[in-house]
Amino acid sequence: MQAAHEPVAHEWHAHGLTLRRVAIDTYHENVAYLHRDCAVYRAEGFQALSKVEIRANGKCILATLNVVDDASIVGCQELGLSRDAFAQLKAADGHPVAVSQAEPPESIPALFRKINGERLSRADFGAIVRDIAALRYSKIELTAFVVACNRSELDREEVYFLCDAMVASGRRLDWHASLVVDKHCIGGIPGNRTSMLVVPIVSAYGLVFPKTSSRAITSPAGTADTMEVLANVELPFEQLTGLVRKHRACLAWGGTADLSPADDVLISVERPLSIDSPGQMVASILSKKIAAGATHLVLDIPIGPSAKVRSMPEAQRLRRLFEYVAQRLQLSLEVVITDGRQPVGCGVGPVLEARDVMQVLENDPRAPDDLRQKSLRLAGRIIECSPDVRGGDGYKLARDILDSGRALAQMRAIIAAQGARDFDHQHPPLGALTLEVRATEAGAVIDIDNRQIARVARLAGAPKVKGAGVDLNVKLGETVAAGDLLYRVYASYSADLEFARQASAQASGYRIGSAAQVPHVFVEF
Amino acid sequence: MQAAHEPVAHEWHAHGLTLRRVAIDTYHENVAYLHRDCAVYRAEGFQALSKVEIRANGKCILATLNVVDDASIVGCQELGLSRDAFAQLKAADGHPVAVSQAEPPESIPALFRKINGERLSRADFGAIVRDIAALRYSKIELTAFVVACNRSELDREEVYFLCDAMVASGRRLDWHASLVVDKHCIGGIPGNRTSMLVVPIVSAYGLVFPKTSSRAITSPAGTADTMEVLANVELPFEQLTGLVRKHRACLAWGGTADLSPADDVLISVERPLSIDSPGQMVASILSKKIAAGATHLVLDIPIGPSAKVRSMPEAQRLRRLFEYVAQRLQLSLEVVITDGRQPVGCGVGPVLEARDVMQVLENDPRAPDDLRQKSLRLAGRIIECSPDVRGGDGYKLARDILDSGRALAQMRAIIAAQGARDFDHQHPPLGALTLEVRATEAGAVIDIDNRQIARVARLAGAPKVKGAGVDLNVKLGETVAAGDLLYRVYASYSADLEFARQASAQASGYRIGSAAQVPHVFVEF
Repeated sequence: MQAAHEPVAHEWHAHGLTLRRVAIDTYHENVAYLHRDCAVYRAEGFQALSKVEIRANGKCILATLNVVDDASIVGCQELGLSRDAFAQLKAADGHPVAVSQAEPPESIPALFRKINGERLSRADFGAIVRDIAALRYSKIELTAFVVACNRSELDREEVYFLCDAMVASGRRLDWHASLVVDKHCIGGIPGNRTSMLVVPIVSAYGLVFPKTSSRAITSPAGTADTMEVLANVELPFEQLTGLVRKHRACLAWGGTADLSPADDVLISVERPLSIDSPGQMVASILSKKIAAGATHLVLDIPIGPSAKVRSMPEAQRLRRLFEYVAQRLQLSLEVVITDGRQPVGCGVGPVLEARDVMQVLENDPRAPDDLRQKSLRLAGRIIECSPDVRGGDGYKLARDILDSGRALAQMRAIIAAQGARDFDHQHPPLGALTLEVRATEAGAVIDIDNRQIARVARLAGAPKVKGAGVDLNVKLGETVAAGDLLYRVYASYSADLEFARQASAQASGYRIGSAAQVPHVFVEF
Repeated sequence: MQAAHEPVAHEWHAHGLTLRRVAIDTYHENVAYLHRDCAVYRAEGFQALSKVEIRANGKCILATLNVVDDASIVGCQELGLSRDAFAQLKAADGHPVAVSQAEPPESIPALFRKINGERLSRADFGAIVRDIAALRYSKIELTAFVVACNRSELDREEVYFLCDAMVASGRRLDWHASLVVDKHCIGGIPGNRTSMLVVPIVSAYGLVFPKTSSRAITSPAGTADTMEVLANVELPFEQLTGLVRKHRACLAWGGTADLSPADDVLISVERPLSIDSPGQMVASILSKKIAAGATHLVLDIPIGPSAKVRSMPEAQRLRRLFEYVAQRLQLSLEVVITDGRQPVGCGVGPVLEARDVMQVLENDPRAPDDLRQKSLRLAGRIIECSPDVRGGDGYKLARDILDSGRALAQMRAIIAAQGARDFDHQHPPLGALTLEVRATEAGAVIDIDNRQIARVARLAGAPKVKGAGVDLNVKLGETVAAGDLLYRVYASYSADLEFARQASAQASGYRIGSAAQVPHVFVEF
């Protein structure tokens, strides 16, 4: 009961139209504006919201059509383009332009097969991902792909096909080194800023570690957001490569490098649907790392009652899928399964996390020990990728680099090279408004809900407001008296503080009980 | 591995904004325009493409935000609205207006459960369909719902819940009669215009038959498109009800009556994905019929090699699903399984089909007999819904009404009441450009591909160009010599004719062979 897919025949019509910039920002969606009395609009039978193909200056873009009745916005002889669409054509106002009905993307028959539950081939995934990266899919088609892949549980070879196609959809960096290391965490643990410690330690040891990170999507801070407290992270591609040549490392935002661009498009529909299926997670993470030129990757899968992964069998299934796809793509992968029962460090939010990181680097006695230990273990595992390091020696090498101040010096070099920002971690620029959340009974902390802490920090304004967030005062297993401080919330706007107050009043995120109730977790490392 | 759904807290901010109509037609999508330097835009941290809620004049609408850098389109103290969005608020230019971040629809948690393959409750479907009908779902959320329901194969009670919720989402007509009949075909057979014969016959017999139809979505003509050749079909709701009171019948477009509006929204994403799963088909058809006030429905399921349903077991499965849901909704349903091996009648396209219908009504010897016979059988089954008619007598009653001219008189009364259009079926206003497709070999017609004939007719311009389409000269089982006319294509524009020519050259839609190869079909009626 499926109507056949039918390509629409079409023709080009120039009709003497000229280009006009319409100063409307439609974000990721290209919009074209035609006057209702425009001859092309009448002749072609376009409908508002039709997808049209626009050619000028040897370039071709797709856009959604809006029909205009006001000649001051766009005249009858003009084709208007929204801000970003206009920029893509790189043509001047008044340039001749041609428009036609857009042909449906070539890969639509493959998409329809996936919607109906079929297994797809390497060529199918290649065609679909090419169309997605070229922004040829509508939101409807994108969503259908994501939901169809979510439900039909891609088999592991399909995940490999998808991942490989995603790598091919963008730029692939080549660092001209036989060993390029990287690390990644699947996410879900607030405050988990180990990259900002692992990168200086491992690159101080001598390995090439070009770390590109994302900004927060649904969390209170991504590595790029926190690093931005200390340094510029939006580096032009040439500056980024120069920096890595000189310092072996960077801590930059990955958005400028065109790595696995199809992934960014897919995330734009996965996020509002909270879809994070194993297949899509593996393809997303590995495609970014391979495109960034990594040869060796250490992957952190935290488990805990409020982590993304909640049981060891689930973690092991995910590990095997990561390993299968990495091996097909000739990426050397080490998976470590870590303690995800609670946030790492004390601060949650860009400024608070930057403070924790700098305290660890400076060997400040107030530095959170869990962040220090986890970073040293991860750095040790990465250092062991080096062929001249014996298994088991990495941790000690990493600790020596940190304790000696060499990691701090390397971090300072990276910060200076990227463009330092004014930041004094002894006096971090926190939000002026605060709220204290206190224990209502005495006992041991037996649970800290990662999701609720993240939620309170986001409502307080993180990551947009850098100085907003949550500063934890006690961690799992510690004992408190009634009235003791559990955490302090920082905000810059009273509305934000009020939202955070309501959320923490509903659920503080902490549970107090007896010491015997603290959950154990058996991790691999 | 699912992030929790998190409602976003929000506040109203009037900020002294005033309303402005922006003369841009964005079709079904409401768009709001704010200047980049507008205080609200800066304070609220809206993003372009955010969903915002707009209040004025006691009304509230949702819209997608576009950011403007041109004060001639929208000033810093103004909130612009696209044409239809502005009309929905029914407020004047300059009226005070408030804007806020839109809260996510209440039913999103249920949607997420469906995406993850869970069975939903009656309350879940109620909440989802209410949000869909209120246009609270984004294209992403709509598509996710449609694809998740397609893949997880809704169980039959879920189809009932969905259908019931769709009925409740709009108006439900009450004709104050104990017997209100209707008919429907699941579609896929070109030229199948039996409604325009069945309605006058059955209403001439005396039954109440308020027939509302759709326009073509993917076919070369819907009943509303063909009826529009003869009469006005876009009737204000009051005129429609008055007409049915007087003549017991109408043949109108259903779009003005607000029947199952959620269905129209769902179709807007099902169509581009060619999704037509049994559950969605049943919920869509039955919700429209129940909302239109039908108590008794005769449903036509054609089967054939190029019909929507291709085998008897598939037809029987579909029949059982229709019957289960109809019984839960207390609709009396008769399913008839009919011959769908080829188009019905000769003409395919509005004017050509109107000609066939009028020939049958006038007992013209040139009238296509298959259209006459099918209409009489359907009309007979519907007449038998009347408690004073014995099973088996309906066909003869219907034939007497048609042969005596009473059906023609009733049709003329309906046409006059709706507003007659100038149409002479002896000289139908066909497209001036023609193309003849001829047999390349001698033999019997053993196959006529419904989809290819429909495709050629659509490329020729149907249904938009009323006089465009395909006129079949020979039908299944008839013999032809090489060079004999198979069908004639009519078009009004040379580009359309050229597209039709290319398509019919690729595949005429006809197969010629030996008489023994004509496929048999065992139908129920």
